[in-house]
Amino acid sequence: KTPVPVAEYLFRRLHEIGIRSIHGVPGDFNLVALDYIPKAGLRWVGSVNELNAAYAADGYARTKGISALVTTFGVGELSAINGVAGSFSEHIPVVHIVGCPSTISQRNGMLLHHTLGNGDFNVFANMSSAISCDTARLNKPSEIADQIDHALRECWIRSRPVYIMLPTDMAEQKIEGARLDTPIDLAEPKNGVEREDYVVDVVLKYLHAAKSPVILVDACAIRHRVLEEVHDLVEKTQLPVFVTPMGKGAINESHPAYGGVYAGSGSRPDVANRLESADLVLSIGPLKSDFNTAGFSYRTSQLSSIDFHSTHCTVRYSEYPGVAMRGVLRKVVERVDLSKLSRPTSPEVANEVAKNRDSSETITQAFFWPRIGEYLKEDDIVVTETGTSNFGIWDTKYPRGVTGLTQILWGSIGWSVGAAQGAALAAKDMGVDRRTILFVGDGSFQLTAQEVSTMIRHNLKVTIFLIYNEGFTIERFIHGMEAEYNDISRWQYTEVPTVFGASDKQVRKFVIKTKDELDKLVTDKEFNEAGGLQFVELWMPKEDAPRVLKITAEIAAKNNAKM
Amino acid sequence: KTPVPVAEYLFRRLHEIGIRSIHGVPGDFNLVALDYIPKAGLRWVGSVNELNAAYAADGYARTKGISALVTTFGVGELSAINGVAGSFSEHIPVVHIVGCPSTISQRNGMLLHHTLGNGDFNVFANMSSAISCDTARLNKPSEIADQIDHALRECWIRSRPVYIMLPTDMAEQKIEGARLDTPIDLAEPKNGVEREDYVVDVVLKYLHAAKSPVILVDACAIRHRVLEEVHDLVEKTQLPVFVTPMGKGAINESHPAYGGVYAGSGSRPDVANRLESADLVLSIGPLKSDFNTAGFSYRTSQLSSIDFHSTHCTVRYSEYPGVAMRGVLRKVVERVDLSKLSRPTSPEVANEVAKNRDSSETITQAFFWPRIGEYLKEDDIVVTETGTSNFGIWDTKYPRGVTGLTQILWGSIGWSVGAAQGAALAAKDMGVDRRTILFVGDGSFQLTAQEVSTMIRHNLKVTIFLIYNEGFTIERFIHGMEAEYNDISRWQYTEVPTVFGASDKQVRKFVIKTKDELDKLVTDKEFNEAGGLQFVELWMPKEDAPRVLKITAEIAAKNNAKM
Ligand SMILES: Cc1ncc(C[n+]2csc(CCOP(=O)(O)OP(=O)(O)O)c2C)c(N)n1
Ligand SMILES: Cc1ncc(C[n+]2csc(CCOP(=O)(O)OP(=O)(O)O)c2C)c(N)n1
Ligand SMILES: [Mg+2]
Ligand SMILES: [Mg+2]
Repeated sequence: KTPVPVAEYLFRRLHEIGIRSIHGVPGDFNLVALDYIPKAGLRWVGSVNELNAAYAADGYARTKGISALVTTFGVGELSAINGVAGSFSEHIPVVHIVGCPSTISQRNGMLLHHTLGNGDFNVFANMSSAISCDTARLNKPSEIADQIDHALRECWIRSRPVYIMLPTDMAEQKIEGARLDTPIDLAEPKNGVEREDYVVDVVLKYLHAAKSPVILVDACAIRHRVLEEVHDLVEKTQLPVFVTPMGKGAINESHPAYGGVYAGSGSRPDVANRLESADLVLSIGPLKSDFNTAGFSYRTSQLSSIDFHSTHCTVRYSEYPGVAMRGVLRKVVERVDLSKLSRPTSPEVANEVAKNRDSSETITQAFFWPRIGEYLKEDDIVVTETGTSNFGIWDTKYPRGVTGLTQILWGSIGWSVGAAQGAALAAKDMGVDRRTILFVGDGSFQLTAQEVSTMIRHNLKVTIFLIYNEGFTIERFIHGMEAEYNDISRWQYTEVPTVFGASDKQVRKFVIKTKDELDKLVTDKEFNEAGGLQFVELWMPKEDAPRVLKITAEIAAKNNAKM
Repeated sequence: KTPVPVAEYLFRRLHEIGIRSIHGVPGDFNLVALDYIPKAGLRWVGSVNELNAAYAADGYARTKGISALVTTFGVGELSAINGVAGSFSEHIPVVHIVGCPSTISQRNGMLLHHTLGNGDFNVFANMSSAISCDTARLNKPSEIADQIDHALRECWIRSRPVYIMLPTDMAEQKIEGARLDTPIDLAEPKNGVEREDYVVDVVLKYLHAAKSPVILVDACAIRHRVLEEVHDLVEKTQLPVFVTPMGKGAINESHPAYGGVYAGSGSRPDVANRLESADLVLSIGPLKSDFNTAGFSYRTSQLSSIDFHSTHCTVRYSEYPGVAMRGVLRKVVERVDLSKLSRPTSPEVANEVAKNRDSSETITQAFFWPRIGEYLKEDDIVVTETGTSNFGIWDTKYPRGVTGLTQILWGSIGWSVGAAQGAALAAKDMGVDRRTILFVGDGSFQLTAQEVSTMIRHNLKVTIFLIYNEGFTIERFIHGMEAEYNDISRWQYTEVPTVFGASDKQVRKFVIKTKDELDKLVTDKEFNEAGGLQFVELWMPKEDAPRVLKITAEIAAKNNAKM
């Protein structure tokens, strides 16, 4: 009754589920579809390349909830695939739309550009299926609306990328638009009541009996959107609450119950002590990867653990498949009997600046990260990169409302530059005035530097701290401290924004070599309140690394060498 | 008897087959292996990112015959995969070595960084297997030498990428080194004599009977290394010889028998005429993709064609599987009876500068490409990018010995910047003093701009002509002439090399806006003889495209829209 073109249907659905900007790069197989982006009230980002676009979409989704990426067949999608794989690995919902040759060309096995020359038009979709939770090939108009709705629902609920293949001859096919009046159902399936109650009882039994229970919040609590439940749990119980490196930012670090970052032997002693002597750890959304656990160095026992996942819960060694954490947590909050609860105190967390200020002028890693904690403000978005910054940030205490973005599991360098662009754009799209602050190593920055161009193009508010330490310091600590392969070229980093199109009004540049210069910069009013792009080249020693990076690197090297 | 570490074995084999520089980016899963690169007499390139590294390896292989690329598990290899897919599509032999977690970690399904978090360590290798002609997982020391030798042989003979997965705990395992005394056998399998003679007889029968036979040289003649046979055939028969766009550079364009570029309706009328009225086309290494045929617009008949492939030959409609072109061509050269041969004349080919010089100052596409033909010198390496340059170059007549690098089938933009770096490095490694000249669009350049940094790092001799036409002109001609998505940010292009580390001595910069400025530049002695990097920002109109691009774009748009 209300026929709409497929492309319009798709983009209106994206708008409906909260997306406002579309990342990607044009190509002749997606051009016609792109015409429908502004019509659906969406912004075309116009990314500089597809990998950066994928990283940016990842950062956008981490900030706004979900995102979309449009690429072209073969060349575009494969350029992006590492970024999308990262979103899969890290549970980020990204809708990847690939404009592909017409169904007619496909059927005829035409020898087209952007193919392997073998007439196989499914090979790239097959590659992507390994890193997508749904793959939709939009080949038949009668099925397309269903396919799109299903894919978007899967993307949201499973919090992972989906892959949508849109042939050129389908982009403007008309499908029934009346469906658009009914929003896609994004509600998570509810747990069976009996089953859920059973698990809640078990949890409460252990919780009420525990002498020193604590809460540990990890990545999947953020990714599967149970932070409200977790905050209510903390608020109500006032139990000591800790975060893992991937969970950092999930908890208000100014809350009296907040106790710090736990990562086994990478933790501060008082944190390790409290966690490892607890007789019950409510572990919410755990994702125990090597770098998230300082090399698998937890010394907690499964006998005193309850793990809450998006697909199941595990109490000690008992598994409860199909019981998702949200419902359980909600009921635990409602039903917990505070009178039966033992409440140990939390270790105190502070930015230990004075303690780490040695007498040298040099900005050491030990000094820098707590110092940055004092510079950060409520609701900042903080992006850190694989390298010294991902580990240094453990020693930064966040103000309330800070969102922390890291890619600790996938760990693809260069990601943070794209992610910062996406995050800042998301904040802009949400109409909130948050600062996006990026900490990126000089090595990582080189991989994706041109994403700064997109920041400028959209006038985004980003402050970039580029850690200038002459190369791959994290790698040096794993292997090859002096090796040539860990060196990089010396760029004129502060000139990068100018070259990528920023006028002098659009960017402010700084070279910071000493503690005093740093102090002055981060207390400067203008610096703190800047509305646009700022670029800080920050000198740090080549052979200096945060405490926990040294520990983790040593374990990684041993693991690699083990025969 | 002479135990050598696996990494040493591998890199010594790479040296043996002609590789001198290894492209790639370090990661903790490949660091230990990298230590063996200098020991094997190889140079580590230290690329800025993996996609650029893959593009560069592609360019290196096109120039030096074969190349290698080292990445790290997951993040690194997937970043490179689009580049390697291009090498697969275009028949370029690239050895892709991926440092991966130890066999022990794999067996234990450890939750490591750079994984999808699902314990699956084969998922990336499986993705790569679709774009590799051999996949070797080096897990058992006793099999490794065989696996390596086999992979390298396949890579060379089939002229396509191979994938080698090297676990950290295997890099230093000792294997028998005595094998290294015997070089890998890279000889192509010979055709069966009787079969081959049969095909030669058929070919000669048609050739001797033809009234107006011509030769058409395409991509696979270059890729499967039969240019010597082709040159001998031309020399002996003096038959008119043409090239396709992907075959451009295969034939000495100053040779009297050379007749120009054939691509159906994209050809100059006299060329189209000669080809399409020929009663026999000896088509050597044909690869009839859309952009290589100006949108499938050949008007030749299979009834008057003999196709020579690396795996078979086809005479009219008769197929001869298993008969590779090399042996057949060699015998045709030996046995052709010149007294029975009709030899039509070739169309004349010239750089039509005067004819295309209109009275405006503007550098038009029509003017530029023939003009460049006069600037080029013998043995130059010319790299062109998907966009106006790939089509414009059809109107450039190459001097003798010019190598033309294009990626017409895969067509991934940004490729040319990496490929130019790889080609220039290959020339350097070969100890020859060739100029590498890159023509790249402003849009394409933005994707991989930082590869200029690698050119500087290795002091490569590259002249870059950046076609500044404010965006994606080729796309404009396909769809969306005025569309915002075809616009790009204005960069300070000429400052790019400086920002990426070039001193004023290392780079010369030019902004060229008029025909006169261009004339002056390309006739300047210093410009012509420069030993390092030169960067030319070349202004061309936004809505101007080479003649053949307009034709091809129209056909592509129609193809896409067909319902
Ligand atoms: C795409 C990708 N390629 C390679 C790696 C391996 N890698 C991990 S960290 C790192 C070096 C990072 O150096 P830098 O950003 O300078 O950080 P820092 O010096 O602060 O440690 C490299 C090369 C990776 N993780 N991802
Ligand atoms: C990796 C990749 N992404 C997207 C495309 C689609 N595409 C083909 S050509 C082109 C524009 C090239 O523009 P430019 O380099 O400026 O060339 P020109 O203006 O000379 O045509 C684009 C976006 C592609 N081929 N490869
Ligand atoms: Mg560094
Ligand atoms: Mg352009």
